[in-house]
Amino acid sequence: MPDQLPVFIVRELKALEPTATGRAFASVLVIKKLAAKTASNGNTFLSVELGDRTGSFGCTVFGDSPVFETLKAAGEGGVVRVEGKVEYYQGRLSPRLARAAELAEAELSAPGVLESLVEIAPEGHEAMWQEFAVLIDALKHDALRLTVRGVFDEIGDTFRWSPAAIAMHHAYRHGLLEHTLHMARACRALLPHYPEVDPDLALAGILLHDTGKAIEYEGTLATKRSRRGILQGHVVLGYQLARKHGIKARLDADRLERLEHIILSHQGEPEWGAAVYAATPEAVFVSMIDNLDARMGMVQRALRQAGDNDEFSERLPGLSSPLLTRKITPPPITP
Amino acid sequence: MPDQLPVFIVRELKALEPTATGRAFASVLVIKKLAAKTASNGNTFLSVELGDRTGSFGCTVFGDSPVFETLKAAGEGGVVRVEGKVEYYQGRLSPRLARAAELAEAELSAPGVLESLVEIAPEGHEAMWQEFAVLIDALKHDALRLTVRGVFDEIGDTFRWSPAAIAMHHAYRHGLLEHTLHMARACRALLPHYPEVDPDLALAGILLHDTGKAIEYEGTLATKRSRRGILQGHVVLGYQLARKHGIKARLDADRLERLEHIILSHQGEPEWGAAVYAATPEAVFVSMIDNLDARMGMVQRALRQAGDNDEFSERLPGLSSPLLTRKITPPPITP
Amino acid sequence: MPDQLPVFIVRELKALEPTATGRAFASVLVIKKLAAKTASNGNTFLSVELGDRTGSFGCTVFGDSPVFETLKAAGEGGVVRVEGKVEYYQGRLSPRLARAAELAEAELSAPGVLESLVEIAPEGHEAMWQEFAVLIDALKHDALRLTVRGVFDEIGDTFRWSPAAIAMHHAYRHGLLEHTLHMARACRALLPHYPEVDPDLALAGILLHDTGKAIEYEGTLATKRSRRGILQGHVVLGYQLARKHGIKARLDADRLERLEHIILSHQGEPEWGAAVYAATPEAVFVSMIDNLDARMGMVQRALRQAGDNDEFSERLPGLSSPLLTRKITPPPITP
Amino acid sequence: MPDQLPVFIVRELKALEPTATGRAFASVLVIKKLAAKTASNGNTFLSVELGDRTGSFGCTVFGDSPVFETLKAAGEGGVVRVEGKVEYYQGRLSPRLARAAELAEAELSAPGVLESLVEIAPEGHEAMWQEFAVLIDALKHDALRLTVRGVFDEIGDTFRWSPAAIAMHHAYRHGLLEHTLHMARACRALLPHYPEVDPDLALAGILLHDTGKAIEYEGTLATKRSRRGILQGHVVLGYQLARKHGIKARLDADRLERLEHIILSHQGEPEWGAAVYAATPEAVFVSMIDNLDARMGMVQRALRQAGDNDEFSERLPGLSSPLLTRKITPPPITP
Amino acid sequence: MPDQLPVFIVRELKALEPTATGRAFASVLVIKKLAAKTASNGNTFLSVELGDRTGSFGCTVFGDSPVFETLKAAGEGGVVRVEGKVEYYQGRLSPRLARAAELAEAELSAPGVLESLVEIAPEGHEAMWQEFAVLIDALKHDALRLTVRGVFDEIGDTFRWSPAAIAMHHAYRHGLLEHTLHMARACRALLPHYPEVDPDLALAGILLHDTGKAIEYEGTLATKRSRRGILQGHVVLGYQLARKHGIKARLDADRLERLEHIILSHQGEPEWGAAVYAATPEAVFVSMIDNLDARMGMVQRALRQAGDNDEFSERLPGLSSPLLTRKITPPPITP
Amino acid sequence: MPDQLPVFIVRELKALEPTATGRAFASVLVIKKLAAKTASNGNTFLSVELGDRTGSFGCTVFGDSPVFETLKAAGEGGVVRVEGKVEYYQGRLSPRLARAAELAEAELSAPGVLESLVEIAPEGHEAMWQEFAVLIDALKHDALRLTVRGVFDEIGDTFRWSPAAIAMHHAYRHGLLEHTLHMARACRALLPHYPEVDPDLALAGILLHDTGKAIEYEGTLATKRSRRGILQGHVVLGYQLARKHGIKARLDADRLERLEHIILSHQGEPEWGAAVYAATPEAVFVSMIDNLDARMGMVQRALRQAGDNDEFSERLPGLSSPLLTRKITPPPITP
Repeated sequence: MPDQLPVFIVRELKALEPTATGRAFASVLVIKKLAAKTASNGNTFLSVELGDRTGSFGCTVFGDSPVFETLKAAGEGGVVRVEGKVEYYQGRLSPRLARAAELAEAELSAPGVLESLVEIAPEGHEAMWQEFAVLIDALKHDALRLTVRGVFDEIGDTFRWSPAAIAMHHAYRHGLLEHTLHMARACRALLPHYPEVDPDLALAGILLHDTGKAIEYEGTLATKRSRRGILQGHVVLGYQLARKHGIKARLDADRLERLEHIILSHQGEPEWGAAVYAATPEAVFVSMIDNLDARMGMVQRALRQAGDNDEFSERLPGLSSPLLTRKITPPPITP
Repeated sequence: MPDQLPVFIVRELKALEPTATGRAFASVLVIKKLAAKTASNGNTFLSVELGDRTGSFGCTVFGDSPVFETLKAAGEGGVVRVEGKVEYYQGRLSPRLARAAELAEAELSAPGVLESLVEIAPEGHEAMWQEFAVLIDALKHDALRLTVRGVFDEIGDTFRWSPAAIAMHHAYRHGLLEHTLHMARACRALLPHYPEVDPDLALAGILLHDTGKAIEYEGTLATKRSRRGILQGHVVLGYQLARKHGIKARLDADRLERLEHIILSHQGEPEWGAAVYAATPEAVFVSMIDNLDARMGMVQRALRQAGDNDEFSERLPGLSSPLLTRKITPPPITP
Repeated sequence: MPDQLPVFIVRELKALEPTATGRAFASVLVIKKLAAKTASNGNTFLSVELGDRTGSFGCTVFGDSPVFETLKAAGEGGVVRVEGKVEYYQGRLSPRLARAAELAEAELSAPGVLESLVEIAPEGHEAMWQEFAVLIDALKHDALRLTVRGVFDEIGDTFRWSPAAIAMHHAYRHGLLEHTLHMARACRALLPHYPEVDPDLALAGILLHDTGKAIEYEGTLATKRSRRGILQGHVVLGYQLARKHGIKARLDADRLERLEHIILSHQGEPEWGAAVYAATPEAVFVSMIDNLDARMGMVQRALRQAGDNDEFSERLPGLSSPLLTRKITPPPITP
Repeated sequence: MPDQLPVFIVRELKALEPTATGRAFASVLVIKKLAAKTASNGNTFLSVELGDRTGSFGCTVFGDSPVFETLKAAGEGGVVRVEGKVEYYQGRLSPRLARAAELAEAELSAPGVLESLVEIAPEGHEAMWQEFAVLIDALKHDALRLTVRGVFDEIGDTFRWSPAAIAMHHAYRHGLLEHTLHMARACRALLPHYPEVDPDLALAGILLHDTGKAIEYEGTLATKRSRRGILQGHVVLGYQLARKHGIKARLDADRLERLEHIILSHQGEPEWGAAVYAATPEAVFVSMIDNLDARMGMVQRALRQAGDNDEFSERLPGLSSPLLTRKITPPPITP
Repeated sequence: MPDQLPVFIVRELKALEPTATGRAFASVLVIKKLAAKTASNGNTFLSVELGDRTGSFGCTVFGDSPVFETLKAAGEGGVVRVEGKVEYYQGRLSPRLARAAELAEAELSAPGVLESLVEIAPEGHEAMWQEFAVLIDALKHDALRLTVRGVFDEIGDTFRWSPAAIAMHHAYRHGLLEHTLHMARACRALLPHYPEVDPDLALAGILLHDTGKAIEYEGTLATKRSRRGILQGHVVLGYQLARKHGIKARLDADRLERLEHIILSHQGEPEWGAAVYAATPEAVFVSMIDNLDARMGMVQRALRQAGDNDEFSERLPGLSSPLLTRKITPPPITP
Repeated sequence: MPDQLPVFIVRELKALEPTATGRAFASVLVIKKLAAKTASNGNTFLSVELGDRTGSFGCTVFGDSPVFETLKAAGEGGVVRVEGKVEYYQGRLSPRLARAAELAEAELSAPGVLESLVEIAPEGHEAMWQEFAVLIDALKHDALRLTVRGVFDEIGDTFRWSPAAIAMHHAYRHGLLEHTLHMARACRALLPHYPEVDPDLALAGILLHDTGKAIEYEGTLATKRSRRGILQGHVVLGYQLARKHGIKARLDADRLERLEHIILSHQGEPEWGAAVYAATPEAVFVSMIDNLDARMGMVQRALRQAGDNDEFSERLPGLSSPLLTRKITPPPITP
């Protein structure tokens, strides 16, 4: 496939004037949604949504299209390099695709490719993952450390790529790892000031509290809730993971119950998804740190996205307010 | 211990005039609450609440009382035959207890004893338990039947004595069995009209939906929430029971997940304790039958307690209203 | 009007490619909304929404259009056979209509016509209506039966065509009849298990509980809330109907008040529209069956609309969740 | 019955020291509650609450008491002159009653008697009732005036004595008349500033909006909700009254519907009891005046009850706050 | 700039058929939103929303456009006379602008110009402002009058042009003045009937209660919340204004505190923005009049906008209902 | 006054048996409430509540009592040494007081006196106050430091004795200082992990966020809300303090507005008392730390009050749950 075609991101494609009709282009895109449908004449066609981190557009691909088989095979979450010509249908961008090729894993990991497709946590995930491993090793209580390690041996690969949410805080690639790591850092900083909290239990609880999301969210490029996520919810899924590996690690019954309780109660209020109210010092502590870092994560993201001249961000639903993103007046320089 | 003393129930003791001070009496009573405390002079005393189904009264028992050791040994939920004299302390009934003897299991099962101590489901629990067993046997799907049987082999003994709640509907001995059985009857009656519901799955879901309460509630004569009940909640406890026995019975993954989902969602709304919203036909069906029978259970109890001449019951919190308990005008006799 | 033109349903019209511009077509459509407006130049034009059960589109019809008079005369809810050519306006389908003829009643009842225009209850309405009549006849209490019959003599014709809601459960033609009938079936199935409920009163209450909707909703092909519906609400309208016919049938005051109470309280909570909380056994019973069948109606409709390969439906607002529509794994065949 | 015994109000009886035991007294009291009960020995006794506007006390009256028959005959809401001796039972005042005689209607209307028994609206009810009649006569629209007059011909006698609530605003004798009159005054004062409101309709709506309370509340000396009040609610009862007399007065359908709508919607929000949301200019207007005068009624009552030195009242539930009852600093005298 | 081009309002521009493409037009428009953005090729362009009171449309203006500098200089809230040709982009009206000139203040005040651009209070603002001044002068208490005058000396110019809200009641030019004046009229009409309310304090409270909005809302032609509005809210801003001028006028501490309290509590409930609950007679009174006039303002606006043949308005969010705008049947003419 | 009488705390007085009637005792007590009332015979008497940190009792003191003048003079919050004899009135402890003497300031500060009267923060207030001063000095920004110092120069004396709440978290002497200090410690620990937060602004915000409570709460031994507290609320009072001293310290407008905003928004949600939603990084950060430390304060207090053998505390309203106070199983000792 020739590479010389101009490569467009979706925001640019959408910014083209109608006079661009017929213009050739190339793009690297994720298949965000794909559904095979049957027209009233019996023919099968694909209803596809293609996008990158700057936006997405829908198109209908009929059985006789040259890209039909490639898109169908790639499936939701697949990444394809497409070539086509700009067209409009019913007033919306609806390019006519002439070629499509799925990207191999190796191509995906080329510098910049992924970043162009999805929003990614600002800290490098390799470094975060190493810090994470150090945190696990630092747990002093043997069975607790084995429990945590057991869980991440099982779901760690998914965990480190998963977003922390579909639409709320830390809703981007590696967001779950980032949010959990930030909570662990906050926890360690606060522990000296809350001596009634058992350090190992609180930290283990933080590391495990959202692990159910690695099962609840499916797909890292086109995230949606999985069947297990809908039918059980991440709170119960995470509880089940901790229970399984706690028993395997012969964690004493008292600690296991307290660890499970942190996971079951971390959402704070039943209407936000908690199975029970937090009823141990560690569970109260973890749920409040979760709250704090979730809100600060929204602040951090809004600051990253703010233009230099913006005074306020858009209204952030999680804060019920726009955020003042303008920098503070620098303090006077004292000579 | 002489039997000739007049036996009083608590309501009668409380109805005595102050002129009754000094009068000897005997009563059979449950120890509803018992806490050992230390006075500022270093002496230990017991703060005890004694009662039967008609009421309760508190009394303080000092170390030199002849009943100190018996009450302490019997503990919360113990049943004692006491003898004493009517006295008043700070204007409240506060009998001076002279003798106390704990009742043996055999004495408790003598006709009428239990009924005098706690409210009991109106249907006989033996018959209900047999009907329950028949319902389990009638499950056609082998692994599902084994799953349900496994759960009741583990917790059945507690289940059949447990109330369905501490303060809301079916809040009396065998209430959990009664409520579950009534739901099963309603389910079987409705199934022909809702063919989209899988009969075996719905019925198994009903039989198991509240089994976590057999763990959440502790004590059958003096009920309170257990540690596991507070830290995990009956929804998660019941889910865990079903999961354990479903895996043991090699129930297929699809059915197990649907069965677990019925339990996780039966409370209807997250703020009422559901872990997730009902998302299968069977889960919606079971949660609505639960609702229906819970409300009708409040109606039935108010009707049982209504006097012949009462028009309305007291306000029932679960209905947000008093209930019209007066019978309907009999229809005219058509000759 | 020549019949040889290809007949399109709205979904097909919308699926056409822009290259179809100018193509001739015919369609049978309902006038969903019609408003006469005056342009700033003083000319009158019609703002019309035309549709069938697969969708709808808006168009503006000026005074010199050949279909102006026909559409104006047919009015909202009228059904017209139109011919025209495919065109697009501002990127949206906006056909140029050349001919229009209103369908006579007889044409509407031709097989398949109505089904193509509006969603219709899956059970045949003739059979449902007959079963309904049998249910009324089966009421043993004479005055109660006369009351119910009186109401349906007055509003039955509208009732049997009306949807049970504009946007929530059973929101389709005959939905009100279907929902009421399903509730009656459920009621009869449950009555043996709730002996404290008066069968005649409960059944009469169910048959009448939603009759106010036959007045609240106006138009069977293009439903909207009527003036009386907005100013009084279906609860009060239904109560008024029952009261009028109860008095006419000389129903005794006790029963009439209980019957009225079922209607006034069936919505459950004041914020959902109940005038009072349910305060009789029959009123509690009916409101819970209403709840149950409303939810199961949403389940049934989602299952009917599910594709064979779909795992979940869209999120159903009434359930706050998507529904798992995938069939259960068939049980193993036991030889 | 000798009159020379010292007459006590309840507040004084309760303020007596225990050394007063055995002291003879007389009181005029309302029977606030009366229930005939059967002791476990088969004897009947009365559980009675006696009180005046300064408080109340309970006592149990056995079959052999000299006042048993008199109290039973007088019933709830009856007013009795009692004589007895001060006694205490279980630390609470529990006088031994020796004589009781029911007061005749004439005695009740003697100056000061009623005022000592119940809280009464501060304005004289005769004058209020005359002003009320003038307001009705001032309605210009004939059929509307006849409608309003018809309603008050039916329920006026009860209306003018009824409280406007059991526990919230204007909860005292003539409170319903007072609140309605105050709303009518406010309405007439505001009408010139809201010309879009039809004066006759708004005023008729105000006069009738709460008439259902004359049926919902039963008893003027011992108020409770009647059976019709519980089963239908004052909104529907008032609507029914207006409808009946509107039809009788041949009020045109448009006005009748708007009048009914004012009543159905005046509670503002469904969760506060409105059957529908206010949807006409008059209904919005009336519901806001209702709100305003209800709140100001709470203010007026708290000011009447405030001591000269009090700064704040107790917390008023209807305002979610204590009220500052201290007078404003008088303005400086300008010479 | 030649004036002979046909002048279009936005509603007319949007009503043009696509065949109008290329047609020349002129319009007077407000710049509702204007953001300078940088394309991925480094070029700057403006994303602009232009509109009048009948609607608005967006367009993108590139650096080489003849109107680029004019629009950029005029900025948000600027009013421009534009000439251009009708074009469509992606199916939406997207005129190609050829000329633009900002209107001078004098041109803006030409008859009818402003009225065509924004919705304006129906009463003349000059007359309202004079009546307002009279109201201030009529305050008898000297320091109170000085306080109020001080506030309006500071913010009066903005106040009289400001809307009372961005999206709710009185959300149009002079709406804040109109709403405050209407409240003052209602207050004066009601004062004789609520003698417990201090007239001067209540009236001063009304005049000042919403003055913070003159700071919270920025721009009279393109209104948005200011930085101070977002960070402090109009309740605190208005409180601060009253406090500043009250201290300056040497208002006694008692009155100042009560005046501040009216402002702090006028929103009624904390979740609607009140800093505290109303706890003085005047504060309760003012908050209820605010409520009443806000609702009636919605009614008045819906009536103004209603067509002669409309029966109901659209659903009004502030009333949770459509409003019946049809006139009442005229009363019969009595000869 | 002889000192040899046995000294009782309230809990001990209440634990006495009725046989103790007539026993002489002495106690040091706070006057929690005191109201002068007039009996119907015209005599004045005091209605008094006396208590220490273990409980309280009410008594009525008539004009001829030997303690009448002393109690009246001491007033609410006064501390008195009383002598009397145990008596019961209407079944409740109602000692007959024979002597009373108010304690001088010096006597109050004798070791253990205060601790016996009110609950006191566990950390020494002198040390906390010194740490507080160091925190202020550590603020780098000059005007910010001057602002904070200015506020504490004005209200510091009250601040350091005040509770942080009447009924919720840190509701005890020095609780406000303790809670603010704990928040400051948590803030400093977290700052390195949230670099987007301005350290000086966040810390100054924390130090000042609750200073309004030093005005809202009145009396350190018998706390109640002051007039300013009820009419303005601590949020506005604290904002006013910061504004006054910020202006005095010539703090730049940007920082002052951000500082005020932290105070106005720290309660999180308007229904919890926030004037606006947090809209700056520092405001979000401070409100979340406030939340965290408030909850942990409840945990700490419940742990302090727990008996060695208790498993759970009572239900804590702020946590909606009882707290597991039992210590964690000690980890196994690894040799």
